[in-house]
Amino acid sequence: MKSYSSIPSSRPSTPLLDAIDTPSDLKKLSVPQLSQLADQLREYLLFSVGQSGGHFGSGLGVVELTIALHYVFDSPNDKICWDVGHQAYPHKILTGRREQLLNIRTRDGLSAFPKRSESVHDAFGVGHSSTSISAAMGYACAHRLQNQKHHSIAVIGDGALTAGMAFEALSHAGADKTPMLVILNDNDMSISESVGGVSNALTKIISSKTFLNFRENSKKVLSNLPHAVSIARKAEEHVKGLITPGTLFEELGFNYIGPVQGHDLHDLVRVLTNIKENIESYSGPQFLHICTQKGKGFEPAEDSPIAYHAINKIQKHTAPTIKAKTYSNIFGQWLVAKAKVDENLVGITPAMREGSDLVEFSKQFPTRYFDVAIAEQHAVTFAAGLACQGMKPVVAIYSTFLQRAYDQLIHDVAIQDLDVLFAIDRAGIVGEDGATHAGNLDISFIRCVPNMILMTPKDENECAQMLELGYQYNGPAAVRYPRGKGAGVEVSTDSINYEIGQSELLMKGQKIAILAFGSMVQNAKQSAHDLNATLVNMRFIKPLDTQMIDQISKDHELIVTIEENVVMGGAGSAINEYLNQSFANIRVLNLGLPDAYQTHGTPQELICEAGLDTASITRSIQIAWQKIN
Amino acid sequence: MKSYSSIPSSRPSTPLLDAIDTPSDLKKLSVPQLSQLADQLREYLLFSVGQSGGHFGSGLGVVELTIALHYVFDSPNDKICWDVGHQAYPHKILTGRREQLLNIRTRDGLSAFPKRSESVHDAFGVGHSSTSISAAMGYACAHRLQNQKHHSIAVIGDGALTAGMAFEALSHAGADKTPMLVILNDNDMSISESVGGVSNALTKIISSKTFLNFRENSKKVLSNLPHAVSIARKAEEHVKGLITPGTLFEELGFNYIGPVQGHDLHDLVRVLTNIKENIESYSGPQFLHICTQKGKGFEPAEDSPIAYHAINKIQKHTAPTIKAKTYSNIFGQWLVAKAKVDENLVGITPAMREGSDLVEFSKQFPTRYFDVAIAEQHAVTFAAGLACQGMKPVVAIYSTFLQRAYDQLIHDVAIQDLDVLFAIDRAGIVGEDGATHAGNLDISFIRCVPNMILMTPKDENECAQMLELGYQYNGPAAVRYPRGKGAGVEVSTDSINYEIGQSELLMKGQKIAILAFGSMVQNAKQSAHDLNATLVNMRFIKPLDTQMIDQISKDHELIVTIEENVVMGGAGSAINEYLNQSFANIRVLNLGLPDAYQTHGTPQELICEAGLDTASITRSIQIAWQKIN
Repeated sequence: MKSYSSIPSSRPSTPLLDAIDTPSDLKKLSVPQLSQLADQLREYLLFSVGQSGGHFGSGLGVVELTIALHYVFDSPNDKICWDVGHQAYPHKILTGRREQLLNIRTRDGLSAFPKRSESVHDAFGVGHSSTSISAAMGYACAHRLQNQKHHSIAVIGDGALTAGMAFEALSHAGADKTPMLVILNDNDMSISESVGGVSNALTKIISSKTFLNFRENSKKVLSNLPHAVSIARKAEEHVKGLITPGTLFEELGFNYIGPVQGHDLHDLVRVLTNIKENIESYSGPQFLHICTQKGKGFEPAEDSPIAYHAINKIQKHTAPTIKAKTYSNIFGQWLVAKAKVDENLVGITPAMREGSDLVEFSKQFPTRYFDVAIAEQHAVTFAAGLACQGMKPVVAIYSTFLQRAYDQLIHDVAIQDLDVLFAIDRAGIVGEDGATHAGNLDISFIRCVPNMILMTPKDENECAQMLELGYQYNGPAAVRYPRGKGAGVEVSTDSINYEIGQSELLMKGQKIAILAFGSMVQNAKQSAHDLNATLVNMRFIKPLDTQMIDQISKDHELIVTIEENVVMGGAGSAINEYLNQSFANIRVLNLGLPDAYQTHGTPQELICEAGLDTASITRSIQIAWQKIN
Repeated sequence: MKSYSSIPSSRPSTPLLDAIDTPSDLKKLSVPQLSQLADQLREYLLFSVGQSGGHFGSGLGVVELTIALHYVFDSPNDKICWDVGHQAYPHKILTGRREQLLNIRTRDGLSAFPKRSESVHDAFGVGHSSTSISAAMGYACAHRLQNQKHHSIAVIGDGALTAGMAFEALSHAGADKTPMLVILNDNDMSISESVGGVSNALTKIISSKTFLNFRENSKKVLSNLPHAVSIARKAEEHVKGLITPGTLFEELGFNYIGPVQGHDLHDLVRVLTNIKENIESYSGPQFLHICTQKGKGFEPAEDSPIAYHAINKIQKHTAPTIKAKTYSNIFGQWLVAKAKVDENLVGITPAMREGSDLVEFSKQFPTRYFDVAIAEQHAVTFAAGLACQGMKPVVAIYSTFLQRAYDQLIHDVAIQDLDVLFAIDRAGIVGEDGATHAGNLDISFIRCVPNMILMTPKDENECAQMLELGYQYNGPAAVRYPRGKGAGVEVSTDSINYEIGQSELLMKGQKIAILAFGSMVQNAKQSAHDLNATLVNMRFIKPLDTQMIDQISKDHELIVTIEENVVMGGAGSAINEYLNQSFANIRVLNLGLPDAYQTHGTPQELICEAGLDTASITRSIQIAWQKIN
């Protein structure tokens, strides 16, 4: 295998790869040619992601697996469900999207993840982790009911395996004896380092000396004997008493095969061919454990897999970048500062240490830092338990992943009115990651939950203030803040001059009043100025500043609500309800995100598409004003 | 141990039990006295639940465990987290609520589940399954951070163990080496029969001959030797090569102890004492596997544990009951009828075969029936996978449990616009089970999800029609229907004379128009009549019948929306948004459930409390009319 130390800046020569437009082209090659193809695929992937930016390390790690899967199986009749989808770039290249990869994650380019509308070879759309086994089991059960002999395969990483729903699916498939294949792509990594008992169990298997001997034996067996896999199974059973490899999966009803080195195409093709041939004679689902290296074949990524999870595109001329802080940085710094003065503070992340900026906190306060693995449900109920015993848990979570812990937010935190602070990152438009990662719904699904406090900061300083207010508040509270950087407002050390539920009057105008939430305060400023409108930074979705609304509705003719959340059930909807409840007689315009999944694009493109840029806001208000007069 | 064949109709004599008002009273007894106490507790439980109705089988199964736990541990300093909570009646009896148990599940009586506000001995409020390990781990980590030597214990059933979040917590605690105890109460049952790989693995352990020998040995060991548990562990290690008991849990980092027979107080006290004494010398969490029998000591329940999961109170005079069908029955019958004519139909339940009325379907169509265990997340994504391959999955799920699968509904079904029908049972007010089981939020959290169709039937016939419409619709659709019986409207065989998005004008009145959703159509009828108001059965929350709303807003002065869901973000909120969007100039009153957790009570009590009975509706409308005029 070739290894690379830098990202090619010009397109490499990849003659074998260039001839592959569908998986059937791949099947014409010999196994030795596949290894050459792997080199070319890896080099092209490096070049392409260098041009476009994007996910990277996981793709490099599954170059051989992807080739072997498409060589042995028959997509799209056979279904390959890629978990999370970060690792699907090689799959996209081999299934007719080689050239399009250069525009991945751009407005009209490829999606960052498998997407059913993009290719028949993308069996299941994805973005969140740990769905692949359930989806592949759905396919397998459908095949069985339809008397079709097609195969169904889930490819899941060791990080994604820690999530409860993966376990639910393993347990169901094991009991159901579903004829399917789960491939564990074990690189001892999620986006952060893998944590949790499952991860430890896997490490134990791999590091065991007995296993290493077994693997050598297994190789010999595989290369010389016709019924390789069935004999390998016997060898496996033999050593089970000593090292119990894969017992976790065997206990759940799977036939465990492995571990197999995941960068040897020869081995992979043989093992997969055997599994494919034997899949129906086994009386249940198969579990193939392969070991790969994230970033394989690109030395800097092999050394720093977390840093090289994804990269930005190579800039032709390096412009001096402004070192503004992201909202995640604001949170991370607030958390560290608060932990220094309050020893009851505990920080919790579901496997997003880097993304949520908890690295510094984890270093300074290791005993109060909990990375619970990809386990959002547990993260929230664990926080509830901590709160019951008088600790002050802060759950750092992305808006889109909080959907995974919705019941726990309601049933374990809010019903019991427990003192848990949710720091909700990536709220609103997220951009290049597309619909699966959008944080467009959290205002709607949180504000209907009794006992919750919900806040939207207009800038970085207000974000820090609201984290502080939410922390001081004795009950469940959430601050939702956007992805990326704000306007660059410095965090002040002044004391906070407002309380929970108090809005801020920014401009006093006439007739029209804009009630803006969070990031939209900034976008509405120029519109308010141009229209001589009143502008209020509402700050709180729950509780609403009803005094302010009462006042506004008395001396204006049109209220405009504006938020970076869907209009359906959002913050504007809260204002509508209050106005009805108080029998106010005033016209209202609700602006916000559409009732649709926005595709990927830059945040600015999506904001414009939704009509939430300053020019569109002004225009929408003008039209409304005409309509009501 | 005494065994009972009928429920006592008068209060039994329970002198030992009567002397116990706190766990410390219990500690004064000798171990032989504990067995007498167990008999009295069981008999009192039978009597009391006979008077009040309520959960039953699980409590009988843990009489000995509950006594042993409170005898050995020190609640409330030590924390006992009961999973689900169906089994907590004996715990309530022993912690000062013996007499109050007679009024359990009534308006001002005890809650059906542990509830923090009810007793310091209820460490964690509950109702949904599989939260106990996360909560107990929160307690244990807090104890560790606070340098407290208290113990933290989760008691979880084998059914609840199949849910992903339990696995997430086991995995985290195993990796974290949290000093805590998880007790698996294994009765091979959830409310339905347990299913899934975990359940199979447990059965394998228990049915193994080698285990039985080991258990005998273990008993001997426990009765004769001072350091019983540590020696038992060696014995366990010895047999591991042969039967691997508990390897699943050992792999995750737990010290597995068991299985132990759960109805022998002598053994239980000894084992728990040893575990308690040794808990800190072990370098990680402990897992105690006990085997119990649901309904133990009451013969009819031992024979039919599902039927005796809960009972109604004994009626003094048996009144002739009207055999009206529940909404669940309507669903169950529709599903069977549809499956007969469409072989693509697949029915899925997360362990609620009886509650969702899937028994008949499961018998007639065993290959198309999937009980996925308590695994709501997997249920929904599994359905998505089936839909991708052209099957027609119907997911039967309670409103409150759909909260567990919210991300899967969004990320796996709705974003991909897949053809999955959700039959949402127990939507709206649920009654005696209290806040944890309320279905008050689903309209709010579903309608903000793009691509969803959401329907609310006014009666049984419309429920069947909407299931049919949703099934025919090629995309994600949901029908939400109430718990229990409707007005008794027969299901018609006529063809459906409306389409998705079409409402029904029921009465034409003047000035005031009531737009009612689902169950509230019935409650609003008399009000509409009394007020000479227009009444519309809206039927669809999404899409709204905008034509009807346009018409109504032209020739009325007040629109009243009414729904059995919280007002926040609910169906009325959808109408508010549409009226704003269409620049309609009309006043609106939104009626619905409050922004608060309603406690338990009869559905009628809760409806009145929320002001949704006919008299309250009329009064609210009259007040609003005065306010706006």
